[in-house]
Amino acid sequence: MIGKTVDELKVGDRAELSKTISESDIYLYAGVTGDFNPAHINQVYAEKTFFRSRIAHGLLSAGFISAAIGTLLPGPGTIYIRQELDFVAPVYIGDTITALIEVLKIDIIENHVVLKTRCKNQKGEIVIDGKALVSPPKK
Amino acid sequence: MIGKTVDELKVGDRAELSKTISESDIYLYAGVTGDFNPAHINQVYAEKTFFRSRIAHGLLSAGFISAAIGTLLPGPGTIYIRQELDFVAPVYIGDTITALIEVLKIDIIENHVVLKTRCKNQKGEIVIDGKALVSPPKK
Amino acid sequence: MIGKTVDELKVGDRAELSKTISESDIYLYAGVTGDFNPAHINQVYAEKTFFRSRIAHGLLSAGFISAAIGTLLPGPGTIYIRQELDFVAPVYIGDTITALIEVLKIDIIENHVVLKTRCKNQKGEIVIDGKALVSPPKK
Amino acid sequence: MIGKTVDELKVGDRAELSKTISESDIYLYAGVTGDFNPAHINQVYAEKTFFRSRIAHGLLSAGFISAAIGTLLPGPGTIYIRQELDFVAPVYIGDTITALIEVLKIDIIENHVVLKTRCKNQKGEIVIDGKALVSPPKK
Repeated sequence: MIGKTVDELKVGDRAELSKTISESDIYLYAGVTGDFNPAHINQVYAEKTFFRSRIAHGLLSAGFISAAIGTLLPGPGTIYIRQELDFVAPVYIGDTITALIEVLKIDIIENHVVLKTRCKNQKGEIVIDGKALVSPPKK
Repeated sequence: MIGKTVDELKVGDRAELSKTISESDIYLYAGVTGDFNPAHINQVYAEKTFFRSRIAHGLLSAGFISAAIGTLLPGPGTIYIRQELDFVAPVYIGDTITALIEVLKIDIIENHVVLKTRCKNQKGEIVIDGKALVSPPKK
Repeated sequence: MIGKTVDELKVGDRAELSKTISESDIYLYAGVTGDFNPAHINQVYAEKTFFRSRIAHGLLSAGFISAAIGTLLPGPGTIYIRQELDFVAPVYIGDTITALIEVLKIDIIENHVVLKTRCKNQKGEIVIDGKALVSPPKK
Repeated sequence: MIGKTVDELKVGDRAELSKTISESDIYLYAGVTGDFNPAHINQVYAEKTFFRSRIAHGLLSAGFISAAIGTLLPGPGTIYIRQELDFVAPVYIGDTITALIEVLKIDIIENHVVLKTRCKNQKGEIVIDGKALVSPPKK
């Protein structure tokens, strides 16, 4: 249960993790965080908004990025330092979201790695764009 | 059920939202996102790490920031454009986390607002620092 | 984080809170309370009943009344003394329920407030009617 | 899966159902209902209140009454018409709550039954008192 060290990583390494977003995912996420914004949990309200239906919380989809970093690349033992997220398109109930992680830069001296972190939906549309700064595990 | 418009906001406006983090919050969050990084859900593993115990997912605490934005300031109808997060200290089971939102800049022409977004624990230590860019609701 | 005191309330003050009821809400509620009445969790059974489908637990919708009292009117610090509930119509999966709270009577000497407490569905039909007796917070 | 009909019930019939209240019960209930009253989910806040610690939502304990009615007495097929609840003492994390149901009155013509409905804690203290009006199933 230890991820890749900075020596085992190279620029261009990739990982991904996918899940179809269920209504219960959104409701559990709302319940844990207290985010009862009606855009997420009130269908009558949501139908009158720009998005026309309930949408998933942006940080719920971003959770798949964190999951991919913490379990796959670099994996267990990684310290999460910084995450930048651009929410570029809505995520609806039933969408299948894939988090994509790619190594952009490696700083062996500081033990820091910059990752390109995106989420796309089942149509290939990017819904979240951004970067993460992490410190991989040491052996 | 509509939040504050750009005309109703002023620099320095603040809102906050608090919750004591339970083990069940972390487990439900892990279940929804698939983030089974052992640092969050394996106490035997976690006791051997730098943090000495299971810690909450950074994006779980960040969820309180999103909740405060979407329900309080600016509130319902806000479009979430960008979030930057610096994870500066760990969050443990039993910590009481308060998300603090403060209006930093208002761009009336673009209908954009920059928010200072932080989370602190019960000792007053900042655990997450960062900024959000949002578009408040229109009347 | 303190609600309205008895001096800050007046007869006719109102608050409301809405949520679309999901299947997962009913299942989680059943799991927490142990209310595995087949009317709520067994679709085969429920189709043969008067209601023709699974219905939400009456006290689940009533929970939105308590949520509106404890977070909005009077809000945090309120002591819940008594609740009367008349279950007048069924709530189905997918219904959007709005809890409506209204101040009916104020007793400044006893620090007691009587609230009209109702829930309606997305068609405007009352599904729960009743009254609550609460003691608002003191400054 | 059918409960007792009005002919099968007699005054004095009793049933009970018990559960130890966990922190996760309170957190799931808060998540389903949106009742993020800090008295239930913020330990730092709760320690400064009259109750000295986080308490369970009153309607969460009341859910055990509904569970006992809907699964035991009269059981499946019962229509819940009315519930009166007096919240007489707080319920803390770790308390073991027993819902007690007792048949008080039977109206064979209207097919109505009045139940005495109480919850007590592990010390035998009544925490909820009240009555329910129900319509038992018909064969």
